[in-house]
Order: sequence, then C-alpha cells, then structure tokens
Amino acid sequence: MKLPLVPLLLAAACLTAAAQETDTSGVYAPVAGNLLRTGLGRLGAYRMLEELTSRAGHRLSGSAGADTALVLAKAWMEERGFSNVHFEHIMVPRWERGKTEKARLEIPGKRSVPLSVCALGGSVATPSGGLNAGVIEVKSFGELESLGSAAAGKILFFNRPMDPTLLNTFEAYSGAVDQRSRGAIQGAKAGALAVLVRSMTLVIDAVPHTGAMGYQDGVKKIPAAALSTKDAEMLSALLHRGLLLRVRLTLSCRTLPDVPSANVMGEITGTLNPGEVIVIGGHLDAWDKGTGAHDDGSGCVQAVEALDLIRTLGLKPARTIRAVMFMNEENGLRGGRGYVTDALRHGERHTAMIESDAGGFAPRGFSVDAGNPVRAAVGQWKSILELVNAGRLFSGGSGVDISPMVATGVPGFGVAPENHRYFDYHHSDKDRIDKVNPRELEMGAIAEALLAYMIAQEGLPAGTAPSSR
Amino acid sequence: MKLPLVPLLLAAACLTAAAQETDTSGVYAPVAGNLLRTGLGRLGAYRMLEELTSRAGHRLSGSAGADTALVLAKAWMEERGFSNVHFEHIMVPRWERGKTEKARLEIPGKRSVPLSVCALGGSVATPSGGLNAGVIEVKSFGELESLGSAAAGKILFFNRPMDPTLLNTFEAYSGAVDQRSRGAIQGAKAGALAVLVRSMTLVIDAVPHTGAMGYQDGVKKIPAAALSTKDAEMLSALLHRGLLLRVRLTLSCRTLPDVPSANVMGEITGTLNPGEVIVIGGHLDAWDKGTGAHDDGSGCVQAVEALDLIRTLGLKPARTIRAVMFMNEENGLRGGRGYVTDALRHGERHTAMIESDAGGFAPRGFSVDAGNPVRAAVGQWKSILELVNAGRLFSGGSGVDISPMVATGVPGFGVAPENHRYFDYHHSDKDRIDKVNPRELEMGAIAEALLAYMIAQEGLPAGTAPSSR
Repeated sequence: MKLPLVPLLLAAACLTAAAQETDTSGVYAPVAGNLLRTGLGRLGAYRMLEELTSRAGHRLSGSAGADTALVLAKAWMEERGFSNVHFEHIMVPRWERGKTEKARLEIPGKRSVPLSVCALGGSVATPSGGLNAGVIEVKSFGELESLGSAAAGKILFFNRPMDPTLLNTFEAYSGAVDQRSRGAIQGAKAGALAVLVRSMTLVIDAVPHTGAMGYQDGVKKIPAAALSTKDAEMLSALLHRGLLLRVRLTLSCRTLPDVPSANVMGEITGTLNPGEVIVIGGHLDAWDKGTGAHDDGSGCVQAVEALDLIRTLGLKPARTIRAVMFMNEENGLRGGRGYVTDALRHGERHTAMIESDAGGFAPRGFSVDAGNPVRAAVGQWKSILELVNAGRLFSGGSGVDISPMVATGVPGFGVAPENHRYFDYHHSDKDRIDKVNPRELEMGAIAEALLAYMIAQEGLPAGTAPSSR
Repeated sequence: MKLPLVPLLLAAACLTAAAQETDTSGVYAPVAGNLLRTGLGRLGAYRMLEELTSRAGHRLSGSAGADTALVLAKAWMEERGFSNVHFEHIMVPRWERGKTEKARLEIPGKRSVPLSVCALGGSVATPSGGLNAGVIEVKSFGELESLGSAAAGKILFFNRPMDPTLLNTFEAYSGAVDQRSRGAIQGAKAGALAVLVRSMTLVIDAVPHTGAMGYQDGVKKIPAAALSTKDAEMLSALLHRGLLLRVRLTLSCRTLPDVPSANVMGEITGTLNPGEVIVIGGHLDAWDKGTGAHDDGSGCVQAVEALDLIRTLGLKPARTIRAVMFMNEENGLRGGRGYVTDALRHGERHTAMIESDAGGFAPRGFSVDAGNPVRAAVGQWKSILELVNAGRLFSGGSGVDISPMVATGVPGFGVAPENHRYFDYHHSDKDRIDKVNPRELEMGAIAEALLAYMIAQEGLPAGTAPSSR
C-alpha cells in the first residue's frame, strides 16, 4: 500500500449501530484518548517485559527465577509510587525438570532417531536408565478404553490434534488438553508404563510444549512427556505402516517439598470507597521453557502499566484499583486461592476482578464472567471500550487466577486478545519477547486501565452469581 | 494460561447489542461457519504466499519477478477452474534500483561511518562518484520554508517521525509520508542537492524503508533516499550537538522506458446476473526490498483463496465474483486505471470493489467508501461479519487499486486488519513471509469471501457517490 489511506477508526467506530453510550458525563471518551496517547507514546509495558524476561527468565513456582520476578515486580510498583505495595505470602509446589529429558525412537532394522520431548509439569521421572517399551497410539480416552489390555506394558501415545478449523484457538486447546492433563491417569489405569502426548499447538514443528498434568490418588504415577507435533506426525505415520516401534524415554524430573512464595500487589487507593477494590492481574509464574513472555509476563506488566497509566494521567479513582501479580497459576493456583483467603481476612469488598492471561496480543474486548445485570451494565460501555479497540464482550473464561474470587460472586473480566498465534508459542521455548509487539502489548494495558477506571467510578450492579462456566 | 478457558466467541458475539441481523433466510451464518472450517482447515492463502514469495521474490513493475508473479497467479486461477482467466494488458513504468546505494557520514576529526539508506522509488541517481555535501535537518515543509536559503547546496534531511501515539498506524503514516512523497520537490525548490528521509516506520532499527517519491515538472530532479530510523536518530543527535557534518550519498537507480505488463483475473460467473460484478483484489507488484509478503502478496493470495473458498463450498453466486490481481500499485497505478478502461469497454456493471492491501493480519472489519444507503445496507450485516471477526465498519480508505473504480461511483470496501505491526515491515527488507501468520492471513480471505458472497446474493442499494475522502 502506497498512499495515505486513513480508515477513520476513531471517528466512525460503527457506521450504523445506534449509539449505546452512557458516557453522559463526557468523561470517558477523553480518558480513552489520553490513555492511548500516553500508553502508545511510552510503551511502558514492553520496557517491563524486557526486564522481566531478561532478568528473571523462566520462573516456575519455587524457582530462583520466580523469586527474582517477585523482587522485580515489587520494585516496579514501589518506583511508581503505588500504595500498599506488599507480598502476600503463600506456599507453592516445587517441581523441577532436572537435567535429562530425552527420547529415542527405535525402528526395526534402522538406527534409532531422537524425538523432541519434554516432561510435562508434575510428571514423575523414569528409571534413571530410561524406560524402553513398545508404542501404541490413541486419539481419545474412548479409543483407549476400546483397546482393552492392548496398552498394558506400552508407552501410550496420545495424538489427537487441536482442531485447526475452530476460529477460537482456546476452544481448540480445550478440546485436546484432556490428553495432557489426564492422560497419565487414564494411561496408568490401562497398564501403560508412560505417556507421550502430542504438543498442544496448531503449528507443525520440532518444539515440544509443556504444561500441567495430574495424577489421581490410588492410580499409579507414570511418567508423562510432550512430543513435538512434527515427531508426533512422524511417529503416527510409522505406526500406521505397521512397524513394531519402541521408544526409550528418559526423564529426570522430580517434585520437591513446598516452598514459601508470594503474590505481589500494589494499588491506587480509592478516594471515596477505598474498601471497594477492583483487581487487575496476571500471573508471575511461567513454565520453565522460553521466558513466559506471553504466558503470562504480558498480563503482569500490563497490570502494572495499567495502574501506572491511571496514575500518570492524574486520575483519582473513587474505588481502589489494585494490580496483583499472582503466583503459581501454572501448577497449583495457590496464589489465586490465597488471595481469596486474604481478601476475606481483610473484610474487603471486591467490585471486579480483571485478568489478562491470553497473551500480549492486540485485544478485541473482554470475556465476562458475571450475571446479567453486570453484563448489561458493561454492555452500555461498549462504544467507549471500542475507542481502544476493545469493545467486544464475550461470555465466560475470564481468567484462572481470578477464578477463586469469581466463584465467590465477584464479576470477572478477562482481556480477550486476538488469539491465532497464542498456541504457536504457549508453554514452549518459543514463548519469548521477540514474539511480542510493543504496541499490541500496550493496548492490553490501555484496555484494562479504561475498564478498571470506569468500574471504579461507576461501580457495577449488585451481582447475581456468575453464570455457570 | 493453563486451564481450558473458552470465551464463547461465536455464541456470544454481543452480550447486549440488539440483534441487527438480516440473515432472515438463515443462509449466511452457516456460510460463515463453512468458510471458517474450510479456510482454517486448509490455510490455502499461505500455501500460495509461500509460492509467490519464494518463486517471484520481489516484483516491482516491469521486473522479471513481476512477470513470474503474473504467470503464477494465472496458473493458480486456472488450476482452480476459475472462468475467464486472462491477462489485461497495460504498460507500466520501470524503475531499477541499480547496484549501488550507500551513504557515509563524515564527522569532523573522526572516521566516516556508514548510514543505512536505500533509494526511494522513482529517484534519479547521484553522480557516479556520489554527492558530498553538508546536512541540514527539518521536520516539515513549513520549517524548510522558514530556513530561507539555508538548505541551498545541502543534503536536506527530513526527520519528522510517524506519530506513535495514534492508535491507527495508517493515520501516523499519512501524517509523515509527505516528506517521502514530496520531499525531493520541496528540497529542490529550496536549492538542496539531495534529500534523506527518515524511514516511515514506528520501529527504531537499522533497516531503511523505501516507497514512492515524486518529481514535479519544471522543478529540478534531485536524488532521494530513505534513512533507517536508527541512523536518523543518530544523525539528528549529532546535528543537535552543532557538528558540521557532511554526507556522501551514492545512488545508481534509474528509470527505463515503459514495458508491457498486465493485471490478471479470473471469476465465478454469476448465475442470475453475470454482467454484474463484485471484484476482490490486491496488487501483485511489490517494492524491491523483502518479498512483499504483507504488501501486497497477502491481498493477492487472499483474493484467489476467497474465490476458491466460494467454489469449494459449492456456492453459486447470483452475480459474478472476480479475483483481480492489479499491477503497478506502488509506482503508477496503471493497473487500477487500466481496469476502469476495460470495464467501460466491456459495458460491465460493477456492484462492489473489495481490496485487501493493509497486510495479512487478522481482520477486524472493513473500510467502506460508499454513500449512506450502501453503508446502511452493509451495516445490517455486521453481526454476520462478526462471525468471522470482521464486523467493524470504518469510513474511507478502501484501497488504492480500486480507487479509480470507486471514483466512478462503485462502492469500495477494504479489508481492515489489525495494523500495529504493518509499518514495522512495510516497504523494507523485513516484509517477508516469516512475518505472516497462516491463520491470520486466511481470516482475510474468509472475510472477503463472506462479504463478496453476501453482496453477490443481496446486491447493494443504487449508489450515491461515495463520500469524499
């Protein structure tokens, strides 16, 4: 494109839709404009993300990186003059990948070939010399059940891809992730020695994607690893040729005793109703692959930047707006649960919980976990939110960290960004800052700041319980 | 993010907005669903883009790359069984960069340092040994005028950045690009020997961005080059220290006589009104930096893919839908103008012109260049278009290639994608396929297919002239 073509995004947000604006005071449109100018002018979220990813690196709960992240996040909030900056202590699980994670595929009559694998988070180790067994492929728990005893003594290979035909990649993830989260349980029940799970991504490449997996009391704990999609395709093709393949899998991961950690938070105290709180949050922990730039470094730096944008503009919110960096979203949710306990202890009323944990991509709007009165109220703000490109409102899925608070009846909101690229990087070595665009990242902070400020000023209708998820 | 959180994008496009749907027949929502499933399942646009960028490479009008692109595009359309596949011959300008483009900054008492420059498209060469002169910086034509004769005999350095605080990067581009397009004219009038123009991008890096520049009859033609933003910042900082800097600039570019070229097109002929045509298009030419993956390889492959999606789904449009790959958008618009002549000669009635030329990013909606009756009609389709994430309608800026047809009163539509990243790559060596996400690219094709099909079935109100741009 050559000539200056200027689609008048701001001037003509909707050509035909009737104005649904409740900006009767005329306050919020200028606030939106100031947030855009200030945020896009300074790109503060990206500066913090650079610091977080370069200094703390990966930061699984209980790791040194997580501790560095806590220290950094507290310093950001103090430097910016937030009030009541503090750690909220919790105990977190501690799982370590260990030095060895490898697999080799043994093909009859040929040299063995390496497979790209990584232990799933929470997995037990294999015996130190590895575990060698035949491989059997299934695409679902139903198929596994129909096999009868065929999986006994084998390495069970779960290979159902995320459905690429779905518009919403989170829906595609949701439709495949049972293999990762419960595969080891179902595999052990069928007598398998270990499970290999196709990585949860829409891209075919050589990079394995980790993520949480679980065990069940009374069911044997067997090792579980993610396999790159490229190797999953190869392995499947060879199995379909009827070859009697064996895999040698070696994992050295282990779970250690719980250790102390924290959520970290700071706020702008409300001028009129300081005891009513709007939280903006993300999670500070990240899987030990890549540096968690999107998941969820983005959500953390956006929360600090959102609060700091409000401060920079000199806005004085009527209710308290608090930035919270939760710990341990990825493998325990201790931070999110601990926050509920703490909020109860302090007798605080929470007006809303807002989370960004779907990547630092350009937002389209917000997911809303709340009853109809709240939905209707926020629906009235669509045209204001559209000024920052975040006027679409979706149902459910506001955020994992805030879900314990949302379950108590507090309305939950999740930044809903463009999500086509999210699972290309998610939980893998590719989730690094080079995948984050500074402007797209900042837009999430701007959108959060605007929504939080409007809620702080206008309040929300007394909540009915959120709709079921 | 760990748990399967599924914002129900499709089920709950709007929580509160009253339904504005006119899908009274219930046809288009299923079409949207089928387009998504088929398109996202096969990612056909990306396959073509891989072929175009690897085989044709860069493809400025009149180059061998442009010829390869024409042959490729015609083959795609024939392979897919489109009707009436043909070249529409035009003559195009031919400008060549030549082998040499370099600049060195001479700092008193120090070694000279190289500057990252590239000739602007259409520039004349410097003398073969280069041109050596002092440098003077301005940020606007107004500032240049206020300098009086100070620019005479100098290399004039235009250094007004794109405004990063604007949400719409096209608006930021539009606010800075006069320096590139008319800088050499204004510079020559002020007696400058050459112009250096800060690259049109929001990123600070070492990559220069080319683009079209113009001369004016009766005004001396002086050489013009783009300077990387990083070097622009450095040069400006040194000038502000009061150093008497000189630059040696050497460009070997030249303009050759016009050569034959073509637009290429193919169609699905309408079943009821074959003489009424909806065009989906992009431009096949691209600047000779990078491989024009976003600008506008994306728009071309999306047009072919959109038409092929309609064919694949077995849809039989009532009006003709035609994919057109225009030639020479970047430096002449001969293709867009030639198309008008040809349409007139054939006595065709054009119902709508749709272009994608703002990058292969995820679309948010469409820019509309049309009178109010058309805007109102398309406004009725917002909730259907929202099913493919393209429900926002903006004013103006539909596309350069289609602008000559739009000027005759035909409604124009431009795919309006997320645009934060566009100018990071635009007209530079960075505009390559690794910057394109296959799903985001496909979404543009899906959105175009849906809009084109709805227009083909429903028609549009008799146009008043488009609103002024």
